[in-house]
Amino acid sequence: MTFRNFLMLGAAALAPTVAVAGIAALPVAAFAQDSEPDDAPEIDARIMDEGLNRSEVQMLAHELVDGIGARLTNSPNMRKAESWAVDKMRDLGLKNVRKEGFEFGRGWEHLASSATMLTPREVELTATPVAWTPGTNGVIEAEVVVAPISERAHFEAYRGQLAGKIVMISIPGMGDEPTRAPFRRLDSSDISSRNDVDLPNYSGEGESVERSLKRRKFALELDEFLAAEGAVAWAKMSYRDGKLLHGTGYTHHVGMSPKLPGIEIAAEDYRRIARFAKTGPAPRLRIENDVRFVDGDTQAYNIIGEMAGSDPSAGYVMAGAHFDSWYTGDGAVDNGSGSVVVLEAARILKALGVKPKRTIKFALWGAEEQGLLGSLAYARRHLVSRAGENDLSAFELSSRWRDLYPVTAKPGYSDFKAYFNMDNGSGKFRGLHAEGNPAAEPYLRSWLSSYGVLDAGRVVSGSTGGTDHVYFQAVGLPGYQFIQDPLDYFARLHHTNVDTFDHLRPDDLRQAATVMAGVLLAAANDKGSIPKMPLPVRPNVTDPFEYEYPETD
Amino acid sequence: MTFRNFLMLGAAALAPTVAVAGIAALPVAAFAQDSEPDDAPEIDARIMDEGLNRSEVQMLAHELVDGIGARLTNSPNMRKAESWAVDKMRDLGLKNVRKEGFEFGRGWEHLASSATMLTPREVELTATPVAWTPGTNGVIEAEVVVAPISERAHFEAYRGQLAGKIVMISIPGMGDEPTRAPFRRLDSSDISSRNDVDLPNYSGEGESVERSLKRRKFALELDEFLAAEGAVAWAKMSYRDGKLLHGTGYTHHVGMSPKLPGIEIAAEDYRRIARFAKTGPAPRLRIENDVRFVDGDTQAYNIIGEMAGSDPSAGYVMAGAHFDSWYTGDGAVDNGSGSVVVLEAARILKALGVKPKRTIKFALWGAEEQGLLGSLAYARRHLVSRAGENDLSAFELSSRWRDLYPVTAKPGYSDFKAYFNMDNGSGKFRGLHAEGNPAAEPYLRSWLSSYGVLDAGRVVSGSTGGTDHVYFQAVGLPGYQFIQDPLDYFARLHHTNVDTFDHLRPDDLRQAATVMAGVLLAAANDKGSIPKMPLPVRPNVTDPFEYEYPETD
Repeated sequence: MTFRNFLMLGAAALAPTVAVAGIAALPVAAFAQDSEPDDAPEIDARIMDEGLNRSEVQMLAHELVDGIGARLTNSPNMRKAESWAVDKMRDLGLKNVRKEGFEFGRGWEHLASSATMLTPREVELTATPVAWTPGTNGVIEAEVVVAPISERAHFEAYRGQLAGKIVMISIPGMGDEPTRAPFRRLDSSDISSRNDVDLPNYSGEGESVERSLKRRKFALELDEFLAAEGAVAWAKMSYRDGKLLHGTGYTHHVGMSPKLPGIEIAAEDYRRIARFAKTGPAPRLRIENDVRFVDGDTQAYNIIGEMAGSDPSAGYVMAGAHFDSWYTGDGAVDNGSGSVVVLEAARILKALGVKPKRTIKFALWGAEEQGLLGSLAYARRHLVSRAGENDLSAFELSSRWRDLYPVTAKPGYSDFKAYFNMDNGSGKFRGLHAEGNPAAEPYLRSWLSSYGVLDAGRVVSGSTGGTDHVYFQAVGLPGYQFIQDPLDYFARLHHTNVDTFDHLRPDDLRQAATVMAGVLLAAANDKGSIPKMPLPVRPNVTDPFEYEYPETD
Repeated sequence: MTFRNFLMLGAAALAPTVAVAGIAALPVAAFAQDSEPDDAPEIDARIMDEGLNRSEVQMLAHELVDGIGARLTNSPNMRKAESWAVDKMRDLGLKNVRKEGFEFGRGWEHLASSATMLTPREVELTATPVAWTPGTNGVIEAEVVVAPISERAHFEAYRGQLAGKIVMISIPGMGDEPTRAPFRRLDSSDISSRNDVDLPNYSGEGESVERSLKRRKFALELDEFLAAEGAVAWAKMSYRDGKLLHGTGYTHHVGMSPKLPGIEIAAEDYRRIARFAKTGPAPRLRIENDVRFVDGDTQAYNIIGEMAGSDPSAGYVMAGAHFDSWYTGDGAVDNGSGSVVVLEAARILKALGVKPKRTIKFALWGAEEQGLLGSLAYARRHLVSRAGENDLSAFELSSRWRDLYPVTAKPGYSDFKAYFNMDNGSGKFRGLHAEGNPAAEPYLRSWLSSYGVLDAGRVVSGSTGGTDHVYFQAVGLPGYQFIQDPLDYFARLHHTNVDTFDHLRPDDLRQAATVMAGVLLAAANDKGSIPKMPLPVRPNVTDPFEYEYPETD
């Protein structure tokens, strides 16, 4: 096991943050390794100089986020973005730039829409179609009925009452009371709290996987029920206040498109309609969803480019971010930020002409928002197969895949040395999550050791979920996610119509790309044998003494 | 000087908050006054019971805020609301219900509008017309030019460059970083910090009055300049992020309407356009403002109703709130909340059949948003005249009025015993600002003494501004504003399109109406001679030893 600065463990956390005014200001590591192809820590200083003083990340973000905008999987706009990314990777001088396709489903595009409350007074509503629901084919005018439905058991209560209606399925509730600051940076104890790991960290078969599949199925069952009852459309309430919209929807599979148009109405507007419906008479709405399904190519794509390593037998390290977004904003912090940071990290390393030992791959994943499908496709194509995975429909795949045992390594499995993911907004990097892999922690600390000066030196044991390192982790491969300052990511940007360029923090993006470049190069040059987790087997975590009540209903 | 509970000063602040489950749970005051017409503190317990257990404030708010919505001064919707309020006061059994008109200017109404960025890609913009600017008379399609202008001195730099353009006058800047919680309640030390008073508390002649007049004039000068240059419209950026809009504008005076349509564009959208304009070519926009000036009746109105006192010589006390709003939201927390609390306080007192010694007046002011014009009109009509006020145009009146000396009391001056204003959102009352009138503090404490149990017992010395007690204060009359929990009033609701019913807190409104009713009745029955400030004279606060550089420019 070889890594730099083993004796400096924790030093990054103690290092004062100093201004980086040039190379001279940078700390010199306690000792240097001999014979590294790109001599650290000198190379780290050059990376910081290139990444902080000659950054192109803002213009990359402008081209992608402003210039192209939303990138809903398989939408025409996503196709534009895919071409842009392929061109960009080639322009940067990456090799073996390619699109790797995988089955996804239908494309869908929002062209225009409007929603108006007509009675008891006319109010233009803040609303948007639910993705992958059909258009209204002109204008629909109908009365609403508030019929809260969150599971099949609720259907019965409304039978016979929905014909000709726009069905409002959400419980309106009360306005929110946001008592936390929307924009936050982490302090030291926030970061320390990320050391908690749930062990045994097994992948599931559990309730949550069941629930996730159920939720997806429910969208179609609800559509079926409402259509059979003669409803003309349905509406849900935005889950954030302040007139924010999301437009998220999941019925993208071929042959599984719903019959009824669905809209999401801003919370304030939804609740106003619901109040009028309570006192009566029920308001009438006019809605017009001009949307378009785009068939033809049902594949989504990962876009991958490489810097070839000097030692073909040494495997590769990889950085990635999902490239797709939802459609109501411009996909800026989710995840334009990660995408342009990956590209800028590649630019920095190319600009410095480094010659890494291991190949460095740069991945822009497709279809993350619909179940991490791009990174899943990569894992299935290059890394492992799992028993019975070919029996799963595309619909079931992302929910069920982690439950399948045994896991069989493909030839590429052992080449995969480390993967670094960015998908938590545009906040600067504060370090790395070891994702429950304790053997990796000293390596991660080593790779970050020069970056304490940029406030990015921490390594925590904790694991994170919900994005593209998860399926690698699930088969014992080292996928790590950066610790990022949260900023206002979850408070108001994640999946919303204000996920736009303005909420990117340019200083943070410069720092993130710089750190990513440094970590990638350090990992690519690491002389050690970077530790994996064991190839997982079916977990047994049942309690042998447990009793249960018989199932009812 | 007679008031209740003189010895209990401060006790309210120390009293624990206890649940009010009915009369039995209420604390009994240490001693009671003899011969009060409505025996306190027993009457306070009945007020709390009526106000908390049989509140109608939510339905009042629904009728006004949901049912009628925005109430831009002199708009058709405001006329509807005025009728509603007159009817409501009559239904409540108030006497002498009347509308008192005063010169305001033109009505204006937003019918529909849209704005789209056409190039370099089509984006539907979140935007709204600036109030009291003309419509586009169909569709305008034009290129933008970013030309930051905030004063006349900037005009010269753009001469000859604006013909045919939509002129973007705001500096775009960067996205915000909201590091404070939007929704806040006051703790004890927050309230204590409101004891600071600027003394001498003279009314001005100062820079700020000059500036306010200048700002108003500048809107017309800018319009004149842009029109002369051949610009086709102008756009400003919303001053809040998160796609919030305001639509505020001030060119409502007869004969002073601007020539060019103006729009406010959401910050995220405005900045995106500005970024494209920087890298070029300048985007083209399509805007359509369908708005309507409504002439005919150029008067705005105050709506006033009364509960007659038993002693005609004892004068009156009054509660008030402005009834007008801006137009992009529903005028819920600014100031539907104050309006319905005033009405509910009247309802509570009528329901209990109290017979106050002094008359109690309930006022819903017009045209507050354009310079506190309704309360100013009341002061001029009933309370005082100021030298030269008739020489001022309506345009100058609200900026200049406080500078005029001497002040001459009208016969009604001495009848005005106390005025209580509510205009800080829907947060519950925490007490009263003595507004720099130390002699009043023991009176205010006395009137609030039963309401410590509702967390409303504090009296602070500090003064507040910007709403309808100001002109009373400025002529030595006792106008007080309640201390309110701020909630999310300034963070996201004040003047925005999300100022809707959802952001009203029903529990807070019930409490506020209850406390307002109690304070009004206590003040109406107070046996003391409620102290005024001295009738003000022209202040002299110049430094006799000051030198200045000669004026330039």
